[in-house]
Amino acid sequence: MNEFTKNRVRGFLLDVTGVLYNGSEDGCGTVIPGSVEAVERLYRESMVRFVTNESTLGREGLAAKLSNLGFRIDPSHLIIPLDVAKYYLRKNNLRPHLLVHRNLRNHLDDIDQNSPNCVLVGYARDDFTYEAMNSAFQILMSLKEPLIVSLGCGKFYRRAEGFNLDVGSFVKALQYATDAEVVIIGKPTKSFFMSAVEDMKLQTDEVVMIGDDIVTDIGGAQNAGIKGVQVQTGKWRSEWMDHKIKPDLIANNLKEAVDIILLNNSS
Amino acid sequence: MNEFTKNRVRGFLLDVTGVLYNGSEDGCGTVIPGSVEAVERLYRESMVRFVTNESTLGREGLAAKLSNLGFRIDPSHLIIPLDVAKYYLRKNNLRPHLLVHRNLRNHLDDIDQNSPNCVLVGYARDDFTYEAMNSAFQILMSLKEPLIVSLGCGKFYRRAEGFNLDVGSFVKALQYATDAEVVIIGKPTKSFFMSAVEDMKLQTDEVVMIGDDIVTDIGGAQNAGIKGVQVQTGKWRSEWMDHKIKPDLIANNLKEAVDIILLNNSS
Repeated sequence: MNEFTKNRVRGFLLDVTGVLYNGSEDGCGTVIPGSVEAVERLYRESMVRFVTNESTLGREGLAAKLSNLGFRIDPSHLIIPLDVAKYYLRKNNLRPHLLVHRNLRNHLDDIDQNSPNCVLVGYARDDFTYEAMNSAFQILMSLKEPLIVSLGCGKFYRRAEGFNLDVGSFVKALQYATDAEVVIIGKPTKSFFMSAVEDMKLQTDEVVMIGDDIVTDIGGAQNAGIKGVQVQTGKWRSEWMDHKIKPDLIANNLKEAVDIILLNNSS
Repeated sequence: MNEFTKNRVRGFLLDVTGVLYNGSEDGCGTVIPGSVEAVERLYRESMVRFVTNESTLGREGLAAKLSNLGFRIDPSHLIIPLDVAKYYLRKNNLRPHLLVHRNLRNHLDDIDQNSPNCVLVGYARDDFTYEAMNSAFQILMSLKEPLIVSLGCGKFYRRAEGFNLDVGSFVKALQYATDAEVVIIGKPTKSFFMSAVEDMKLQTDEVVMIGDDIVTDIGGAQNAGIKGVQVQTGKWRSEWMDHKIKPDLIANNLKEAVDIILLNNSS
């Protein structure tokens, strides 16, 4: 914990799935014990933003889901890939073919999709059919410079019932087949973490990232100059103790992480 | 053609899809002009085996399909991954979880599938659902030494309507997510080509492989010491002219390849 004592931690970045709650088959999710209280404490005693690669719901949908689980969160504090992706697509004159979950389509109505010159991939879950994958593949094969814009890049994530394949694995299949360039929007890209840090008007050395994915959350944060705190919930695996990425702190869960860091702040 | 003059070609290995016929949406396929005649000429004047990674039909199904297209082929001359895979599974006490096309399942009834210790992947097409991919992923995650046995490893193949994602891309997704070991049964493995060569009781330098995939067919054959003839049908792409793999001969199609090689034999 010595590293945490150098600078007072003034802002917290929290991953959502696997840190606040675990997803479940029915889509409702299960709160991870202590997380609701931890978030309330952060709103009282510090600053907080939620940095998530969630891409089956829009901002309002995700805010509603978290509210249903008991979290009291300002929706504008959710940093999600969709908004960043839309900005990126417009700025680069990209017209995407969509390989996304049906729920996300109406959030993309305001993006030109005629004569697609890239494929936008989000976690489509049951909409990752062979037909949908193949259509995306065929678009990519028709492009001189095939480009995939991906909402996140996780290999898998954890729901209450177990591990599940995430968007990154399907992007890998398309990239392998087409040699497409892949632009990842979301964690672990530095710019995505920075948009959350800047939103709090803080510096990277005043902030910690708390997440369950050692590569996307911890490695990504550290690469952006932000301390990374690994929680042993969500997709945590004990073999990560030997991972080449070394968290700045490992805590049992979000509540413990928050308690330790705030206690350290006050000492 | 100088290389072909050193040894008389005594046996032909032919790829099937993209060389004899192109697949089509209705599953019936379209004969590539001249191929029926070329196969008949080879049966009259040489020896021939069909070396294919086809894995949605069993041997009888594939033989029937080719017969319907007008090809007169001895079914025992079809060298398919399924038989080799079953031998491999039994020899290594492997009990597969199946991620294969529904048509192939009853051809695997005689393989123990209790308490799976590997995943067998074939080209499942519409059966590559998220649910099926995820079940295979979860089995792999539960294994201490995750193993994928794959019937072929093509990135994509060509049907009459265009390019389509093949089994290799889906295997790549699972491998990326789980770091599983992958054993490929079929082209381009040396042992698969050798089983066809040995079936004709020939030596590798007496044989040519004719195919449309520069990596799987041409590269695979050359790696086994067999000359590789690229046809410009099926999945052929003009940019392969600059590919690091250099075919021993490039022909417009199967008929031209056979005519050139047999003419060269007689000169």
